[in-house]
Amino acid sequence: MRVRNKPWAKDRILEYPQYVVSDPENWKGRWQQRFKQEQPIHIEVGTGKGQFITEMAKANPDINYIGIEIEMSVLVVALDKLIAEELPNLQLLHADGRDLTDYFEKGEISLLYLNFSDPWPKTKHAKRRLTYKTFLATFEKILPDNGEIHFKTDNQGLFEYSLGSFSQYGMIIKQVWLDLHTSSYEGNIMTEYEEKFSSRGQRIYRVEAYFPK
Amino acid sequence: MRVRNKPWAKDRILEYPQYVVSDPENWKGRWQQRFKQEQPIHIEVGTGKGQFITEMAKANPDINYIGIEIEMSVLVVALDKLIAEELPNLQLLHADGRDLTDYFEKGEISLLYLNFSDPWPKTKHAKRRLTYKTFLATFEKILPDNGEIHFKTDNQGLFEYSLGSFSQYGMIIKQVWLDLHTSSYEGNIMTEYEEKFSSRGQRIYRVEAYFPK
Repeated sequence: MRVRNKPWAKDRILEYPQYVVSDPENWKGRWQQRFKQEQPIHIEVGTGKGQFITEMAKANPDINYIGIEIEMSVLVVALDKLIAEELPNLQLLHADGRDLTDYFEKGEISLLYLNFSDPWPKTKHAKRRLTYKTFLATFEKILPDNGEIHFKTDNQGLFEYSLGSFSQYGMIIKQVWLDLHTSSYEGNIMTEYEEKFSSRGQRIYRVEAYFPK
Repeated sequence: MRVRNKPWAKDRILEYPQYVVSDPENWKGRWQQRFKQEQPIHIEVGTGKGQFITEMAKANPDINYIGIEIEMSVLVVALDKLIAEELPNLQLLHADGRDLTDYFEKGEISLLYLNFSDPWPKTKHAKRRLTYKTFLATFEKILPDNGEIHFKTDNQGLFEYSLGSFSQYGMIIKQVWLDLHTSSYEGNIMTEYEEKFSSRGQRIYRVEAYFPK
């Protein structure tokens, strides 16, 4: 996701420490304290402008959500949504996906979403894809046994790659959707990207996979 | 594949015992004797009218092929191709895919192809799909350690199902193609079905998966 740089984003984020966590290492093992109720925590890695995680939080009050984004210029847009909605079960986190084991205990996260992650189409950039094995190793360390990743994308190459990467890592593919919007899948919540690309007739791919015990 | 019944098919097949094996249990463990040269054997389960297996045998003289088909009315069409081509590295087999362990020793087959298998779209018929777990268990018993299945289809539902079925069985997904004909995959040999459906703009899906040691 490319947006223009917003030099003021950092200051704005720091104004709302109740919504955006900037010192995640201090919350390791006690993330539940950030929420009104103690209930399973689901995270989205690469939460972008936050439409998905905000709508999920509204639709599922019995789940706590954390939207994680490395790019302040988009995280600040997600923050605006959270300020407007005042959701007690949503927190935002300014962090890099590769550092998640510094911030979360094993099993502290119940489920992990990846939505429209950067495809990094060049083979030499494969290591940067969020479904590359080093990221999967990080995700496995914060999820419980049999913990799931739910991944969707419109990018055919990234989806082809990711199915192989999941399987070769040792994950089990639970279910695959090769055209989500024409499928019988219910309750899909769209990201900003998804609305844009599916309205152009682009297929949306989805997979649920888990790390077996 | 549906073709009109051909009551004469059986007699014609029996006329060519050098090409079509009708007593496969007698060849278990010694299939190499059916071929001119001793070299790896690849099979296609559900070989239909035989275009794929015939073209593969022509293109790869260093591989021995066996095309397996339960339906005599289509197998007889494959036989006509073999009679015309006189290929020393192709045999046909009239048999049911579920009985393959009666006909082949463990590891006697190096690679197994499934092409445009019947999708059996109703959930209650899932057990009949050639990628259902009982078939996978049969295939595993005739393939070597790390033996591969190469599967292609135009049927989205069957492909979605099969990716999950392979993974849940314990197979590893090596590579996936979500639109084979626009991909960089080289040397694709088309089946009769594939020519027909891809000319209508239908996507062809492909996966290579293996049974790990």
